[in-house]
Amino acid sequence: MINESTLDALLRDFEAKRPRALARAISLSESGHGAALIRHLYARTGRAMTIGLTGPPGVGKSTLSSALVKKARSLHKSVGVISVDPSSPFSHGALLGDRIRLTEHFTDPDVFIRSMASRGHLGGLSGATADAVALMDAFGLDVVLIETVGVGQSEIEIAELAQTTLVALQPGSGDSIQVIKAGIMEIADIFVVNKADHPMANQLRREIRSMMEMLDFAGWVPELVTTQATTGEGIDALWDAIEKHTAYLNETGEIETRRREAFAHQVRQLAMGKLQKRLEHDLRVESPGGLDPYALADRILSRFGVHGEVEEDISTAAHPRASVKGLM
Amino acid sequence: MINESTLDALLRDFEAKRPRALARAISLSESGHGAALIRHLYARTGRAMTIGLTGPPGVGKSTLSSALVKKARSLHKSVGVISVDPSSPFSHGALLGDRIRLTEHFTDPDVFIRSMASRGHLGGLSGATADAVALMDAFGLDVVLIETVGVGQSEIEIAELAQTTLVALQPGSGDSIQVIKAGIMEIADIFVVNKADHPMANQLRREIRSMMEMLDFAGWVPELVTTQATTGEGIDALWDAIEKHTAYLNETGEIETRRREAFAHQVRQLAMGKLQKRLEHDLRVESPGGLDPYALADRILSRFGVHGEVEEDISTAAHPRASVKGLM
Repeated sequence: MINESTLDALLRDFEAKRPRALARAISLSESGHGAALIRHLYARTGRAMTIGLTGPPGVGKSTLSSALVKKARSLHKSVGVISVDPSSPFSHGALLGDRIRLTEHFTDPDVFIRSMASRGHLGGLSGATADAVALMDAFGLDVVLIETVGVGQSEIEIAELAQTTLVALQPGSGDSIQVIKAGIMEIADIFVVNKADHPMANQLRREIRSMMEMLDFAGWVPELVTTQATTGEGIDALWDAIEKHTAYLNETGEIETRRREAFAHQVRQLAMGKLQKRLEHDLRVESPGGLDPYALADRILSRFGVHGEVEEDISTAAHPRASVKGLM
Repeated sequence: MINESTLDALLRDFEAKRPRALARAISLSESGHGAALIRHLYARTGRAMTIGLTGPPGVGKSTLSSALVKKARSLHKSVGVISVDPSSPFSHGALLGDRIRLTEHFTDPDVFIRSMASRGHLGGLSGATADAVALMDAFGLDVVLIETVGVGQSEIEIAELAQTTLVALQPGSGDSIQVIKAGIMEIADIFVVNKADHPMANQLRREIRSMMEMLDFAGWVPELVTTQATTGEGIDALWDAIEKHTAYLNETGEIETRRREAFAHQVRQLAMGKLQKRLEHDLRVESPGGLDPYALADRILSRFGVHGEVEEDISTAAHPRASVKGLM
């Protein structure tokens, strides 16, 4: 928790657009003390263009990020970059290498770069990231780019925070199969085949097209863009695709649906985080005493005011943007 | 829900050790109607030797399972096999291929084979699997083998249901790095290097030993066994390692700790499943109406009788069996 006067001072600095205030606000939120800040600043959010970038390790996400930052800056847009790493402590070395590619923007006052980790945030890593996006948006940054390492569940969640999700794939890596298995197909608004000069680039493009034929897309059909991020090749086309998707969201009103879903997702993460804490506490103080798991679960649930069977029609089903033909 | 007379008839058939009653009980539980059954049968659980087998796709888990079943049968033990597949619908073909390796046991009345999927179970896939283990145990099967496909979070949870967890790795696949990243190192009681005739088998053994040096093991230090499941080579040694681990658990009393943890895990899954359903319901009926995510989360939590900040000392931290030296 932070006290009133510290909060007031921080909010004044934030309004004066001091980058250190933004950094401090994100740190506070990351360590679980962001509620008061978000409450004060939430009304100012909803203006930034938010872009998610995900894909397997080694695909060149940071080089792509750097190229996208350069493009946005050439259009005089201020940019926030959030690098998310939900993976193990072993990968720190590799990440450090990644970060270095963004150094060319370190001295630009209109580029704000931030790495995220899950520490004390109630909503976990995606909760901390959601707060960081909201804070950057409220700060007035025009574009917020969320870069995630890997292709696990938390990355999918994080990509859902963005208006436009880019899925980057690498030729010759067998990525396409991994992507299907990880459920990444369904979240892509734009596929990026990076490393255009790779001999397998054409094959990967064909694979992506075949995979797309297996899916039913309601509305937007993902774009497929080929880039060579190290040389900047294809970045203009990628930016055009992002703008085309943004225009689609605005014209169809789907932007509101995405905002509502992202909002519900944040609320869900926060509430579940708190319920989980209470549950762990109850689990420690309750003694099984000959009960079976169902009986003890019922006893604990009664502490939450939840009794009896929850109605069958209350479903927790996710709402994927696309479904697999004939299989789901 | 099932009615009283159906339940009574099923319990009678179950007690008469009719395999169809076990199959029916697992199906009922899988579709979310197992509570009454488990309540009646829970007191009879705790006698089976439970073995978890996990590892990346292609490592030969089903061939290993089949060899372990053969070994257990040669010792006149009855066996239940639970195959868990939390992966995408795309992998059905591959799984079917896997299943075929178990066909040699299909006609053996003392081998009960069952595939699991997450359908209506409140506790998700690991909840359904926990019920199936309890039902097989109560049915009187001597050994229950839980085989999981892949190395994701749900597989780790499922492996925690077993007294002894085998992690199978394949030479020449780069599996060891994936295993570190997936947090699999910490759950292995026994490492199995399958495909002993592979030219990279020795290198994989060295990699596993180096990884083990990075970990602090409290108590049991994982065994490393090399097998060639297709020929049966190394299966006796693997069985010996399993029995050695079982003896260790019994002698140190750690078996009780594992049972308590598995019990708490089941209760947690069931309670969280129900809380999540209620939360999704509340999310649909509550209108955001200008609230920020924290404010709406608070409003929903008050419906659960949860108010204000949960005490800081209530931690949701997991209790890994081993931790990484200097890093965690």
